[in-house]
Amino acid sequence: MQPFPFSAIVGQDEMKQAMILTAIDGSIGGVLVFGDRGTGKSTAVRALAALLPPIKAVRGCPVNSQFAKDVPAWAGLKAKKTEEAPTPVVDLPLGATEDRVTGALDIEKALTKGEKAFQPGLLAKANRGYLYIDEVNLLEDHIVDLLLDVAQSGENVVEREGLSIRHPARFVLVGSGNPEEGELRPQLLDRFGLSVEVGSPKEVATRVEVIKRRDAFENDNTAFMLRWQAEDAAIRDRILKARRALGKIKTPDQVLNDVAELCLTLGSDGLRGELTLLKAARAFAAWQGDRSLSRHHIKEVAPMALRHRLRRDPLDEAGSGTRVTRTVEDVLG
Amino acid sequence: MQPFPFSAIVGQDEMKQAMILTAIDGSIGGVLVFGDRGTGKSTAVRALAALLPPIKAVRGCPVNSQFAKDVPAWAGLKAKKTEEAPTPVVDLPLGATEDRVTGALDIEKALTKGEKAFQPGLLAKANRGYLYIDEVNLLEDHIVDLLLDVAQSGENVVEREGLSIRHPARFVLVGSGNPEEGELRPQLLDRFGLSVEVGSPKEVATRVEVIKRRDAFENDNTAFMLRWQAEDAAIRDRILKARRALGKIKTPDQVLNDVAELCLTLGSDGLRGELTLLKAARAFAAWQGDRSLSRHHIKEVAPMALRHRLRRDPLDEAGSGTRVTRTVEDVLG
Amino acid sequence: MQPFPFSAIVGQDEMKQAMILTAIDGSIGGVLVFGDRGTGKSTAVRALAALLPPIKAVRGCPVNSQFAKDVPAWAGLKAKKTEEAPTPVVDLPLGATEDRVTGALDIEKALTKGEKAFQPGLLAKANRGYLYIDEVNLLEDHIVDLLLDVAQSGENVVEREGLSIRHPARFVLVGSGNPEEGELRPQLLDRFGLSVEVGSPKEVATRVEVIKRRDAFENDNTAFMLRWQAEDAAIRDRILKARRALGKIKTPDQVLNDVAELCLTLGSDGLRGELTLLKAARAFAAWQGDRSLSRHHIKEVAPMALRHRLRRDPLDEAGSGTRVTRTVEDVLG
Amino acid sequence: MQPFPFSAIVGQDEMKQAMILTAIDGSIGGVLVFGDRGTGKSTAVRALAALLPPIKAVRGCPVNSQFAKDVPAWAGLKAKKTEEAPTPVVDLPLGATEDRVTGALDIEKALTKGEKAFQPGLLAKANRGYLYIDEVNLLEDHIVDLLLDVAQSGENVVEREGLSIRHPARFVLVGSGNPEEGELRPQLLDRFGLSVEVGSPKEVATRVEVIKRRDAFENDNTAFMLRWQAEDAAIRDRILKARRALGKIKTPDQVLNDVAELCLTLGSDGLRGELTLLKAARAFAAWQGDRSLSRHHIKEVAPMALRHRLRRDPLDEAGSGTRVTRTVEDVLG
Amino acid sequence: MQPFPFSAIVGQDEMKQAMILTAIDGSIGGVLVFGDRGTGKSTAVRALAALLPPIKAVRGCPVNSQFAKDVPAWAGLKAKKTEEAPTPVVDLPLGATEDRVTGALDIEKALTKGEKAFQPGLLAKANRGYLYIDEVNLLEDHIVDLLLDVAQSGENVVEREGLSIRHPARFVLVGSGNPEEGELRPQLLDRFGLSVEVGSPKEVATRVEVIKRRDAFENDNTAFMLRWQAEDAAIRDRILKARRALGKIKTPDQVLNDVAELCLTLGSDGLRGELTLLKAARAFAAWQGDRSLSRHHIKEVAPMALRHRLRRDPLDEAGSGTRVTRTVEDVLG
Amino acid sequence: MQPFPFSAIVGQDEMKQAMILTAIDGSIGGVLVFGDRGTGKSTAVRALAALLPPIKAVRGCPVNSQFAKDVPAWAGLKAKKTEEAPTPVVDLPLGATEDRVTGALDIEKALTKGEKAFQPGLLAKANRGYLYIDEVNLLEDHIVDLLLDVAQSGENVVEREGLSIRHPARFVLVGSGNPEEGELRPQLLDRFGLSVEVGSPKEVATRVEVIKRRDAFENDNTAFMLRWQAEDAAIRDRILKARRALGKIKTPDQVLNDVAELCLTLGSDGLRGELTLLKAARAFAAWQGDRSLSRHHIKEVAPMALRHRLRRDPLDEAGSGTRVTRTVEDVLG
Repeated sequence: MQPFPFSAIVGQDEMKQAMILTAIDGSIGGVLVFGDRGTGKSTAVRALAALLPPIKAVRGCPVNSQFAKDVPAWAGLKAKKTEEAPTPVVDLPLGATEDRVTGALDIEKALTKGEKAFQPGLLAKANRGYLYIDEVNLLEDHIVDLLLDVAQSGENVVEREGLSIRHPARFVLVGSGNPEEGELRPQLLDRFGLSVEVGSPKEVATRVEVIKRRDAFENDNTAFMLRWQAEDAAIRDRILKARRALGKIKTPDQVLNDVAELCLTLGSDGLRGELTLLKAARAFAAWQGDRSLSRHHIKEVAPMALRHRLRRDPLDEAGSGTRVTRTVEDVLG
Repeated sequence: MQPFPFSAIVGQDEMKQAMILTAIDGSIGGVLVFGDRGTGKSTAVRALAALLPPIKAVRGCPVNSQFAKDVPAWAGLKAKKTEEAPTPVVDLPLGATEDRVTGALDIEKALTKGEKAFQPGLLAKANRGYLYIDEVNLLEDHIVDLLLDVAQSGENVVEREGLSIRHPARFVLVGSGNPEEGELRPQLLDRFGLSVEVGSPKEVATRVEVIKRRDAFENDNTAFMLRWQAEDAAIRDRILKARRALGKIKTPDQVLNDVAELCLTLGSDGLRGELTLLKAARAFAAWQGDRSLSRHHIKEVAPMALRHRLRRDPLDEAGSGTRVTRTVEDVLG
Repeated sequence: MQPFPFSAIVGQDEMKQAMILTAIDGSIGGVLVFGDRGTGKSTAVRALAALLPPIKAVRGCPVNSQFAKDVPAWAGLKAKKTEEAPTPVVDLPLGATEDRVTGALDIEKALTKGEKAFQPGLLAKANRGYLYIDEVNLLEDHIVDLLLDVAQSGENVVEREGLSIRHPARFVLVGSGNPEEGELRPQLLDRFGLSVEVGSPKEVATRVEVIKRRDAFENDNTAFMLRWQAEDAAIRDRILKARRALGKIKTPDQVLNDVAELCLTLGSDGLRGELTLLKAARAFAAWQGDRSLSRHHIKEVAPMALRHRLRRDPLDEAGSGTRVTRTVEDVLG
Repeated sequence: MQPFPFSAIVGQDEMKQAMILTAIDGSIGGVLVFGDRGTGKSTAVRALAALLPPIKAVRGCPVNSQFAKDVPAWAGLKAKKTEEAPTPVVDLPLGATEDRVTGALDIEKALTKGEKAFQPGLLAKANRGYLYIDEVNLLEDHIVDLLLDVAQSGENVVEREGLSIRHPARFVLVGSGNPEEGELRPQLLDRFGLSVEVGSPKEVATRVEVIKRRDAFENDNTAFMLRWQAEDAAIRDRILKARRALGKIKTPDQVLNDVAELCLTLGSDGLRGELTLLKAARAFAAWQGDRSLSRHHIKEVAPMALRHRLRRDPLDEAGSGTRVTRTVEDVLG
Repeated sequence: MQPFPFSAIVGQDEMKQAMILTAIDGSIGGVLVFGDRGTGKSTAVRALAALLPPIKAVRGCPVNSQFAKDVPAWAGLKAKKTEEAPTPVVDLPLGATEDRVTGALDIEKALTKGEKAFQPGLLAKANRGYLYIDEVNLLEDHIVDLLLDVAQSGENVVEREGLSIRHPARFVLVGSGNPEEGELRPQLLDRFGLSVEVGSPKEVATRVEVIKRRDAFENDNTAFMLRWQAEDAAIRDRILKARRALGKIKTPDQVLNDVAELCLTLGSDGLRGELTLLKAARAFAAWQGDRSLSRHHIKEVAPMALRHRLRRDPLDEAGSGTRVTRTVEDVLG
Repeated sequence: MQPFPFSAIVGQDEMKQAMILTAIDGSIGGVLVFGDRGTGKSTAVRALAALLPPIKAVRGCPVNSQFAKDVPAWAGLKAKKTEEAPTPVVDLPLGATEDRVTGALDIEKALTKGEKAFQPGLLAKANRGYLYIDEVNLLEDHIVDLLLDVAQSGENVVEREGLSIRHPARFVLVGSGNPEEGELRPQLLDRFGLSVEVGSPKEVATRVEVIKRRDAFENDNTAFMLRWQAEDAAIRDRILKARRALGKIKTPDQVLNDVAELCLTLGSDGLRGELTLLKAARAFAAWQGDRSLSRHHIKEVAPMALRHRLRRDPLDEAGSGTRVTRTVEDVLG
C-alpha cells in the first residue's frame, strides 16, 4: 500500500514545515519531533519521502549510488544499471545493535567461505534518504551518538574485525520522542538540527476530518490517492525550485547580528544554534521564493531551530518553545 | 483432546464479544484481557479458533499460505498440495527470545552445510490465526513492541545475520494481563485494538454450572462436544455472514461526530482510539445484522475500544471502564 | 540402598494422604509441601515412588514408554524390549537451566557429526513418575512456570535451534518450600493441585521413635526393610483398588453446591480451586472405598486443595490452613 | 615440604577433636570451623590428613579407587597397579566454577578429536579424602549446595552436555568461615555435621610456644618433624582402633531420650541434629575406648553437633555454643 | 574537505596556546579541555594537526614509521617506500572496546588461515600524531587508564591470546570533557599534562565573526582557505623554531624554587605538577623566543599545568583556575 | 631508558627500608604501599629491581629458570643456554583477567593445531622477581586472593580446561593503594608481609631537590646514572651480605616474649603478625650487621609489620601506624 499523501495530513504545520526545510537543505541536520503517541509522526516521514522525486540509483547497489563508478567494491556488483527508485525511508527498530546499524563482518561468509566480506547495515540503506527513529529517548545513548555522528559527517566508517570500510551515508535523521519517557542528554539534543512539537487536534471538526481522511485512505485507497495527487505534486515542485534558489540567497550583516543576539540572549550553549538557525532561515526564504534573508525569516524558524538548545530554566514555567518565541519578540521586535 | 466449545463458556460476555469482533474484522487489532487467574482466558482463545471454519493452506508451508504461489522460496517446499487446516493458535511462551519469535538464521545448517537458511519463528506459525500471550505484562517491552509492530503491519521483516527475509504475519494478538503485576507502557496499551475485563462469577449457581460443564468436558468428552456443536456452528455462520456484510455498512457523519466528541471528552491521546472505535462499531453492526452505523453501536463497543487509552485520573477512583461508560452517557445521552 | 519405607514414616499424615491422592488420580496436579528443613519431604517422595508397583517400560527408552510403538523416533532405539522398571523419581537440581529441564540440541553431535539430534532433559526422565523440587521458592520463576505448564499439559514441546520435538511428560510435581525464604507468585501457587504443611514432631517419644527407625534403617537395613514390607504392600493394594474405583464415584448436585459455596466464601480466585477440590474429594472417596461423594469427603480434603489459593488477609492472623478449616465449619457445618 | 604435625598444634582442642571424630566415622558429615584469620584452620586439615594411614589406590585413577575393578571406564586407564598414596586433601579455590568442581565435558577432546570425554573435577580428586573450603561464606550458594549434596550422598552425578557420569565422591568437607563476613543460609548450616569455634591464644606464653614451634618447623624442619613423629603415630593408632570399635557401641534407650529431649528443648529444626549428635557421641565413645553410649558422651559432643542448628535468639546474647552448653546442663544435669 | 584553519579560530586563546605547547614538546602530556558543547574543541585539534608540517612515513605502515627499518615485522609489508603524510588525528569513538584501542588477534586470519596475526588498533594509527577523545568523562575508566599509560610510555604492549606485540605509540592525547556530566578520578586527571577551559563567546560582534567565518568556510571554501594560509604558515614556522630552541633554555634555581613553592602552597598532590609546570614553562619560553626560564613564564602557564591537580576545596567557591591564578599572585607576586 | 637509581630517590625512607628487607628475605611476603599518587611508588620498585644483581637464567625460559633441568617441559625449549638477566619486574595491568595472570590454554594452538598447549601468564614472568600492582584496591578480590596465594606458596597451579600445570612462581608482591579509594578486606591485608606509608615532601628545598634530580635524569641521563652508580652498588653489596648472614642471627627468648606481648596488646588477629615481625626484625638485624636479635630491631620494624593488621578503632583517631608506635613504646619501653 502507498503511504498516506503528505498534503492530506491535517494540521501539524510546524512539523510539515520542518520536514520540508530539511528536504530543501539536507545539511540543516535531523528533525526531532516531540509529542504524544498517535499523532502521525511516522506517517509524515513516509509521506514526505513518497512525495519527493525518485532518485536515480544503480540497481542492487547497497548504498543507492547514483553513478556506477560510486558503487563500493565490496558490494561485488557486476551489472551496474541505473534506474529510478523511491527516496529510501529506513526505520531503526528499537533494540537495534551497533552491528545492524553500521554493518559488520559477514559472519556467514567468513565461516563458510573463509572470506572477509562486509555486510552493510541500516546506514547504508538510508543513504540519500531518511532514517526514522521512533521514541529516540528509548534508544541507547551510544547508538544515538553514532547516528548523529554519521548524519553529520555523511560517511559511515567501520573499522573493526579486520574490516576497514567507508561508505557514504547521507540521510536526514527524523526522531520522535515523548518528553515524558526519559530525556536525551543535552549533547545529543544539540546535534539535531530542528525540533518541533505536535499534538492531537482539540476540535471535533478537525478530528472528524482526520478520521474521514484516514477512513477513506483505508477503504477507498485509489480514489483517495488520486484526490491528493496534484497537491503533493505542487509541494514537490516548490521544494525543487527552492533547492535551486538556495545558493543565491543573500545574507545581510544585520541578519547575522540578529541571529547572534538572539542566541546570546537565549543563552543557547555553543554555536550550533546560530549556524542551524541561519541555514534553516535561508531554506525558508528559498521556500518562500525570497532572494534575501530578512528578520522575518529568522523569526519564523527560530522556535524550531533553538527550542531544544535552551538550558532548563526552573523559574520559568513556559515551555522552551514559548520562551524562544517570547525572546524573539523581545530581541527582534 | 479438542478445545472446550466456545458456546459452552459460561458468562464472560464482553470477552466473547470482543473476540468475535476481531474474527469479523482482523484489522481492529489485538485484544487485551485484564483479569484474575483461572478465568478461562486461554480457553476462550482456543475455543474461538476451533469454532472458526478451517483455513485452506498448502501442506507443510511454514506460513500457512493459502496458495502454492505464496509459499516462500526459503521454505524449500517441493510438493505444494492445498488442504484444510484448523485456524492456527500459537502460544508465546514467557521468556521467548526475539530469535524464537521472528525466526533467525538456522545455525545448524550454517555450521554443518555452510548454507544460509532461515529458521522461521512463532510469527510465521501464527500467520492467518491467533497469537496468545499469557501475562503480557511479564514480557519484555521490546518483544511486546515487536509483536505489536508485526500485528499492525501484517508482515515480519528479518534483516540481520546476512538474512533479508519478509513473510506475511497476519494474526490477531490476544494478550492477558493481571493489572496487579506490573503495567504496560501507555505506548503499548494504545496499540491493542480492544480491551476487556473478566472476573470469576460471584453466584453459586453460576459457579456450579461452570464446574459441571468443565467436569462433563473432562469426564464425558464426546457427549459434551456433541451437546454444544450446533450452538458453535450458529456463531460461526453469523461471523461469516458479518464478514461479508462489513464492507457495506454505511457511516453517517453524525456518528463520526459522536466518535470524535467522545474521544476528545475522554482525553484519549492520539487518533488510534477514534479509528478503532469506528471499526469495532462497524463490526458490531455487521454482527447485529444492521446496514448502517448508529449511535447505539458506538455506545456498545466504546468501553472495549477506549478503556485502555485513558490517562490515569488520580482524582477519579472509578475504573477506566466505568469512566468510559459514564462519559458515553454524558456525551451521547 | 533402597529408599526408606513409606509406611515407616512417623506422623506427617496430611503429607502422606496428599501424596496418596495424587497416586490415585495424577490429574489432580502437583503437591506443594511447606515446612522446616529436615522434616523428611524428599524421603517421602522417594518412599511413595518405591511403594508403587513397577511400570512396564521399553528398555532404554528416554521417556519410559510403555509400548514399543511409542518410543520417539529421535531416541534412535533399535531393540525395543519391554521390562519392568521402578516408578521414576527425578530430582530437579537448584540452578538447573531450561536446556537441562526440557532437553536441547545435542551440541556434541552437531559439532562432531553434523547431525541435529535431540538431547532429552529431565522432563523426559520424569515421564510416568515424580519430579521433585527442593526449595521451589529458590527456583527461577520461568523454570517453575515451564514445569507447571508441562505438568498440566502432560507434553513437553521443544521448538528452537531448529528442533521441533514433542514428547509425553506426564508426572506428578512435588515441590517443597520454606515460606520464610521467598514467596511464590500467586499465579504459580494456584497451579499446584494440593498443598500441605509439615513440621518436626514436638513430643520426645515421637522423636525417639523417628531416631530409632532411622538408626535401624541405616545400621540394620535388611531387617528393617523386611519389617515394613507388608504395610507398604497394603497401601499399594489400596491405591490400585482406588484407581479402579475412581471413575464410578457418583457426584450429587448438593456436593457441587457445597464446593462452589465454599470457594466463593473463601474468595479463592478463579475456578481451579473448585475443580481440584472436586477431584481430590473423589480420589479420597475412592481411597475410603465409598461409592458416592459426600460432604464428608469435601471437608476432609478442602484444606489441602484450597490453602494455597487464598488471598493474604492482613487482618486475620490465622494461617491459611486454619482459615480454610474454619470456613469449612461455617459453610458446611 | 611436609605439613605441620597434627600433634604439634598448640591448643584448639575442640577443632582437633571434631576432626578426629570425622576421621573415625566419615558419615558424621563435614566440619565447619568459625574463627579469625590466621588461626591455623587450613594447617589443621592438612595435618590430620598427613597423620592418617596412607590409602591403597590404583595409580593414575582419577577417583583414587582402591580396586582395579572400580576404576571408571571413562578414565581410559590401561595398566591398573595398586600403590599406597597419602589421604587426599583438595583445596576448593574461591571462584571455582561448577564445571571445575563436578567435572565437565573435555572441550579440547571434543574440538580436536570429536570425542565426548569426561574431564573429572575436584570432587573426583577428593574421593576418599578431605575437601577444604576457606571462607565458605564467600562461596556462591549453589556451589555450597552442590558440595553438601555430594558430601552427603557420596556420589557425584554429572548429567549435561550429553554426558551421563556417576563416580564415587566420599570425602569429609571442612569449611572455614568468619561469621563477620556474610552468613550461610540456615539450610546450608544444618547440613554440616559438626561446627567448632577457634580463636587466637590470649596468653603470651602460649603465643610464644606457637611462634617457637612454627619457627622451628620453618627453620629446622627435619629435627622438628622427628620430634613429633611418635605423638602423631599414637593418635593415628587410636583412630584406627576407634574405627574398628564403632559398630559395637551399645545405645541405651535412655540416651536416645536424652538426645531427643535436648534437641526439642533447644528447638533445633528437623531431625538432622538428633542423628548427628548420636553418631558423634558414638564416635567419641569409641575414641574414649568405651563400649556403651552414656550421657557423658552426649554432653561432650553436643556443642559441636548442635551449635549451628539453633535459631538466632535476639533476646539471648550468649553465643550459640554457650546456649547449647547451658541447655545441656539444664536438661541432662 | 580540509579542516578549518587553526589561525581562523576566533578567541579560545588558552586552548590554542596549550595545544601549541604540546606541539613543541610532546612529552608535556595530553591536554584536557573543559567546556560546553559546540565550542570547537574537535575543530581545534584537527586544525592544529593540519597546520603542522607533514611527517615522513613508510607508505602502508600501520604505525606510520619514519624509516623502513622501523616497520614492524607483523605488518607483513613488502615494498617500503617513504612518502609525506599529514600528521595523523585519530578519533576515539565512545564505546570503543579495549581490542579496538590496543589492537588484537586477527580473528578472521586465525579462523580462515590458522595464522596468529596482529590486527593493529587505534593506538597504532595515532602514532606520531593526535588522539582525540570527545567527552572523556563518558569513557570507561579502564580505557582512559590504558590510554594514559600508553601516552606516557610511548609504547603499546599487547600480551594476550598468544600475542606478544610491542609497537611505538607516541601521540598527544586531547580529551574534552563537560564537568557537569560525571567526573574523572583524580588519579586520571593528574596524568593529563595540561588542562584548559573554553566557553562560547559572550559578545555579539565576536559571535557574528564566528558565524561569518564558519559560513564562509562552508560556502566558499577555497577562498577562505587561501585567506588564512599565510597565518597558519607563520604559526607552523614559530613552532618548528621553538622545537629547535627547547633543549637550550636555561633553568635558574630561583625558578625551581618558585615552582616548588607554588605547588606546595596549592597543595597539589605528588610531583607530576611540578615537572609538568617546568616543561610547559620551558616550551612557552621557547615559543616566546626567550633563552632562559623566568618567573614570567611560570606565571603564564601555571593555570593550565595545575588547575586539574587541586583538591576540591568546599569552602572556596572560586573555580580551580581562579585559585591557581590567585595563588600565583600571592606566591610569585 | 634505564630506571631511576634507587639511591637517588629523595626521602621515603620507610618504603625503601621495607623493600630492602624483602630483598634480603623474600619469605617476609609482599609490601603494600599506602599513599598519594605521584609519590614514586612504581619508580621505587623498578629502581630496587635494577639495583639487585642480575639473575642467571636459561634464555627463553618462560619462568626464568636458573638451571636447564628446571625448564618446564611445556615450554618446548630446545637449546637451553644460561645467561645473565635483570631481576624481572612485572606490572599487573588493571582489568587483567585470571587467564592473563595464571596462564591458560593456548586457544590458538588448540584451534589451529589441535594441541593442548599452555600459554604462560604474568605469574610465570614474575618468577624470581617482583610483581607490581598499582592501586591494588581497584583490583577484583578474587585476583588479589589468587596473587596472595601464589606469592605465599611460591607455586602457580593451573588445573582447568584439561590442563594440569604447576610452575614455580616465587616473587615479591608490591602493591600500592590509596586508602581513600576503596578498602581491602582484612583477610587480604593480613596476607601482605609489610606495609608502609608514603607522602609528598612538605619542604620547598626537598621538592626542589626531587625536581632537579628528575629533570637531570630526563635531560642528562648518562651523567646522572654515573653520578649514582657507586651508591647503588653499596646498597647492593650490603643486601647480599645481609642475605648470607640471615640464617645465623640468634633469637633470644626475651625477644619472642616481646613479639607476642606486643601483638597481644595490639590485638592483631591470628599469628601471621608475630611471624612476620620476627622475620622482618631478623632481616633488619642482618642489614644492620648485628648477630643477635634485640628489642631494638623489633621496635624498628614493628610499624611496617603490624600497621595493616590492626582492627579499626573508632575511638582512637590516630592512624594505625601511630597506634603501633605508641604501643611499642608502652610495651617495650
